Amino acid sequence: MAFAQLLIRLPEWLENHLGKDETVLPDLEDRMRLVIELSRLNIEEKTGGPFAAGVFDNKGRLIAPGVNLVENAACSILHAEIVALSLAQKSLNRFDLGDGGKLKYELVTTTEPCAMCYGAIPWAGISRLVCGARDEDARSIGFDEGPKLKNWIDELQLRGIKVHCDVLRDKAASVLHKYAKSGGTIYNSGSR
Amino acid sequence: MAFAQLLIRLPEWLENHLGKDETVLPDLEDRMRLVIELSRLNIEEKTGGPFAAGVFDNKGRLIAPGVNLVENAACSILHAEIVALSLAQKSLNRFDLGDGGKLKYELVTTTEPCAMCYGAIPWAGISRLVCGARDEDARSIGFDEGPKLKNWIDELQLRGIKVHCDVLRDKAASVLHKYAKSGGTIYNSGSR
Repeated sequence: MAFAQLLIRLPEWLENHLGKDETVLPDLEDRMRLVIELSRLNIEEKTGGPFAAGVFDNKGRLIAPGVNLVENAACSILHAEIVALSLAQKSLNRFDLGDGGKLKYELVTTTEPCAMCYGAIPWAGISRLVCGARDEDARSIGFDEGPKLKNWIDELQLRGIKVHCDVLRDKAASVLHKYAKSGGTIYNSGSR
Repeated sequence: MAFAQLLIRLPEWLENHLGKDETVLPDLEDRMRLVIELSRLNIEEKTGGPFAAGVFDNKGRLIAPGVNLVENAACSILHAEIVALSLAQKSLNRFDLGDGGKLKYELVTTTEPCAMCYGAIPWAGISRLVCGARDEDARSIGFDEGPKLKNWIDELQLRGIKVHCDVLRDKAASVLHKYAKSGGTIYNSGSR
């Protein structure tokens, strides 16, 4: 019996938005500003939920962006962080982005990761996680972040992954609130 | 700039192994036996790590199997559970398999889920998780299961997901030990 296959691909508007040249953003807030803009556009273009992310190298070069594709791709796995990590690994042809600690890659995400994306981070080989809005901002519009450790930051740091929170938090959270006001779907892990 | 895309697809041997007809296994141990056999074949065929899973409906019909594809697909996200859940959702064209609790689907996995797959389960809309080998069996051959809640089972049950552990545990664990003895790659979340 033939089973389904799933192609993970970015929406067309996203590559158009970023243009033909490489995206290189040496400033951390600029990197966060970019992913927040992608989260806003993901709502506007009706391609998914109000979340975006990006994997950058240590020069600030964007290896792969990600946006939430859950509804349109009919796949609960395709959170922005998962999309960005998968496509960055595919792009570099390496399941451990850090190559055992030799290389430095960063995941920038508009909202602190849910339980799944959190669990994905240690496997992916990134050196640093940078977050905009907090868990509580996502919860405030009705998203459940899932069963997550209280000391989630410590556990990443124990594994050698730095965590940098609250980068342009208000700007990131404002996209979440805009999504909720516009009546966007709040799909949840407690909905069955 | 054009970014990478990633196609999630099962190895060719897997569809050949299952044959042309639907797989329907009303008995729980038969379902576990099947996924354990897929985990064994995944090593033998050199298509990934010693883990397999499957999403079944409440008649025991296999909607989508999954095997670990991390190394060959160069993607740390592609654990067996993620593959099975993604392809089952794609097959049914629904990001919430349970459709808000109306339908009953089950994830059968050869080893208790790592932190990422654990976090993915509440989003996926399954009603029951069935596990073979334990976390400690995976850890005993050097796999880190990641930063996972101690009361992970309770947290799933709070969300309406039943958890059934230790189904053919010894048989499932024996595949892990075989993999370790054969010198299979133990990729880890603490390796950077």
